[in-house]
Formats: sequence, C-alpha cells, structure tokens
Amino acid sequence: MSHHLHQISPEMQQCIQNCLDCHSTCLNTVSYCLQKGGMHADAAHIRLMLDCVEICQTSANFMLRGSDLHARTCGVCAEICDRCSQDCDRMGDDPQMKECAQMCRRCADSCRQMSMATA
Amino acid sequence: MSHHLHQISPEMQQCIQNCLDCHSTCLNTVSYCLQKGGMHADAAHIRLMLDCVEICQTSANFMLRGSDLHARTCGVCAEICDRCSQDCDRMGDDPQMKECAQMCRRCADSCRQMSMATA
Amino acid sequence: MSHHLHQISPEMQQCIQNCLDCHSTCLNTVSYCLQKGGMHADAAHIRLMLDCVEICQTSANFMLRGSDLHARTCGVCAEICDRCSQDCDRMGDDPQMKECAQMCRRCADSCRQMSMATA
Amino acid sequence: MSHHLHQISPEMQQCIQNCLDCHSTCLNTVSYCLQKGGMHADAAHIRLMLDCVEICQTSANFMLRGSDLHARTCGVCAEICDRCSQDCDRMGDDPQMKECAQMCRRCADSCRQMSMATA
Repeated sequence: MSHHLHQISPEMQQCIQNCLDCHSTCLNTVSYCLQKGGMHADAAHIRLMLDCVEICQTSANFMLRGSDLHARTCGVCAEICDRCSQDCDRMGDDPQMKECAQMCRRCADSCRQMSMATA
Repeated sequence: MSHHLHQISPEMQQCIQNCLDCHSTCLNTVSYCLQKGGMHADAAHIRLMLDCVEICQTSANFMLRGSDLHARTCGVCAEICDRCSQDCDRMGDDPQMKECAQMCRRCADSCRQMSMATA
Repeated sequence: MSHHLHQISPEMQQCIQNCLDCHSTCLNTVSYCLQKGGMHADAAHIRLMLDCVEICQTSANFMLRGSDLHARTCGVCAEICDRCSQDCDRMGDDPQMKECAQMCRRCADSCRQMSMATA
Repeated sequence: MSHHLHQISPEMQQCIQNCLDCHSTCLNTVSYCLQKGGMHADAAHIRLMLDCVEICQTSANFMLRGSDLHARTCGVCAEICDRCSQDCDRMGDDPQMKECAQMCRRCADSCRQMSMATA
C-alpha cells in the first residue's frame, strides 16, 4: 500500500492488500465468467466467487478498522478463498482463471496466518 | 419477510430477517451513540457496532445467495452479535441501547442455530 | 419495520424497508437466474441485478446513518431500480421475475420521492 | 494495480485504485478519529467519513463489474469525496487528516472524469 495506515502492522497491511486484490480480481472475473458462459457461468461457481468477493471485503474492513475480531473473519476468509482457488483451477487452461486462482491462494495464505497469530 | 425467497427454508428466512434487522438497528444506533458522546462514543464500542453491522450484512447475503458456506459466516456473526449485545447492555438504562442489545441477542441465537444445523 | 429507528421519519423508514426488500429479492433472484440459465443468466442481466443489489444496500445504509447525502444515493438508486425492473419484465411469464420487477418499481418510486424531497 | 483486469481501460483501473485507496484510508482514519476524540469524533464528521468509505467501495465495485452505470455512482462519489476532503482539512495541522483529505481529492478528481467521460 502506498498510503500510511494508523496502528496497523506491516504483516496486516500485506494481508489487507491481498484481500483487496483478491476482492477486485474475483469480482472482475465474475463478469468474465458470465460472458464466457458454459461451466464458467455455472451457478455454484458464480455463487462461490461472489462469496469470496464479499468475505475478502469484510475481512479487509475488519483489519482497516483495527478490530480484534479480524482473526475470526480472516479464518473464514482463508477457507472460502481456498475453495474458490480450487474451483477456478478446475476451469482448465484459462489465464484469467489461473490468475484468479493464484490470487485466492495468496489471500488464503495470509488470512490463515492472520487468523492464527491472534488465536 | 413479505416477499417470497427462492429455495430458502422458513428457518433461514427468519435468520435473514434477524440479520437485516440487527444490521439496521446497529447502524442506526451508531449515529445515536456518536451524537450522545461520552462512553457511547468510545472508539472500541463504535468499532464493535460497525463490525456487527458488517458481519450481519455479510451473513444475510450468504444466505440470500443460497451459499452452503453460510454456516461459517453465521458462526462468526453469532459470536460478534453476542459481544455487541453485552457491550450495549453496559451502557446503562438507555432504551435505544437496550433495544439494540435485544436485537443482537436475537440475531446471535438464530445465527448460532444456523451455524450448527449445517455443521 | 418492527423496530424503532432514531431520528428517521416514517417516509424514510418505508424507503429503507423498500431498499432492503429490493436488495434481498434481487440477490436471491440472481441465484434463481443462474440456475435457470439461458437469457436469465445473460451477463448484462446478472450485472444489472448485482448493481441493483449493491446500490439498494448503499442507499439504505445512508438513510440508516441519517446522512443528508442520502438524496444523492437515492437518486441513483431510483434510476438503477427502474432499469432493473424493465430488464426483469423482459424475462416473460416468470413469477419470480415478475415479483422482482415489482419490488424494483416500488423501491424506485420511494427512492425517487426521497431524492426530490431534499433536492 | 499489479493484477490484470478484464476489459477495463487504464484510466478506469486508475480510478478503481483511487477508490480502493480512498476507501481504505477513510475507514482506517475513522478509528484514528474516534480514538482522538474532540472535534475529530464529531457525529457529522464520522458519518461523512463512513459515507465516503461506502460510496468509494460501491463505485469501485461498479467499475470492477464492468457496469455502464458506473458513471452515475462515480458522479455521486466525486461529490461525497469533495465534501469529505473539506471536512478533513478543517481538522487543522494533523498529518493523518491531511493525508486523508489528499486521498479524497485524488479520488474525487478521477471519479469526476469518469462520470463525465460516459455522460
């Protein structure tokens, strides 16, 4: 992040950034998937992507507020991002889906660490 | 809810309604607390109220999408609503805070049941 | 609304309720549309429904906070709900889509009044 | 943004980034203001900051979905960010508030351009 955040550790700043990046990539990829159609537009896949978009945003906001409950939202976020990355990987040799899967894994990793650090 | 929801059980509809009511009451009460000042406007209290507002909205949205991951968000929501109701009860003989505490408890109860039903 | 809201007129309480109902119905209908497939799952239609979901939530939150800027978000909300109701009506003789269209129109009407009252 | 976005122009990517940065800075600054107290924790100031947080998120999401209605949300976002930057500037010689005001101005500028480009 280019901007300064009040009372937020470098590790948490990185986790916030990963959540925001994952949020942006997943929401943008929902539009890609709907245009592509077929298995990309499968109801369960789009729903999982929208779940991921929302929990990433929520987790980022808990950290930005400096809430001590962020460990709980980060725990759920890690789980949902893991599932979403697996679902994106199922879509075959598709660069947009590969990038989305990678972003989800990165977010899941940092959220998992964040959820354990304060457990 | 006056309107019909697709593939959502009566129990879940009630839980969605409780989340939306808790969301509305808490967000409205944030303004009340800031105007009142003193311990009502304590940073930790406002932060917890905003946490509650956001997780209620997120949990309601997971259920409205028909996501099977709603049990996870409902579990976190129950925990945060419990904490928020205790914090509101601490504010003494204040009808707005009493009503907010009660709404948080009702939301916590139904979210807890929702999180166990599918665990 | 069953619960009391601080410093919010009956007209605004009704508008908040309409926004929350429209939000819930549209988000739930997104899942219905994705399962149904065909023109219901058209990328532009799902995108417009998600736009409607989000602006209804945002407008409700501005009013719940007691913000004097709610007239601006309600103005945009009225416009997006109008478009969404027309798009839902295009889907033919489908009760879920008819109910969604009706909810969007009701929300558009009350948001339009809200945006003009304070203009 | 480090990551690739589907069908989004460089100008819009910059506007999305500014909205997300403004969202993060304002939400984080809310906690700062509540801790600081005094005029920083004034109800009208916190409310305006929360309005800014939410409309920035909503505008970013409209652009990330590739919605043609983003011009409308960006127009409202520009107006709210302008007001928020003025309110932050009123807080005197406070580096956190100065940075927040600057971020709001940057976001307002790019949202205004975005709202006119498609008007």
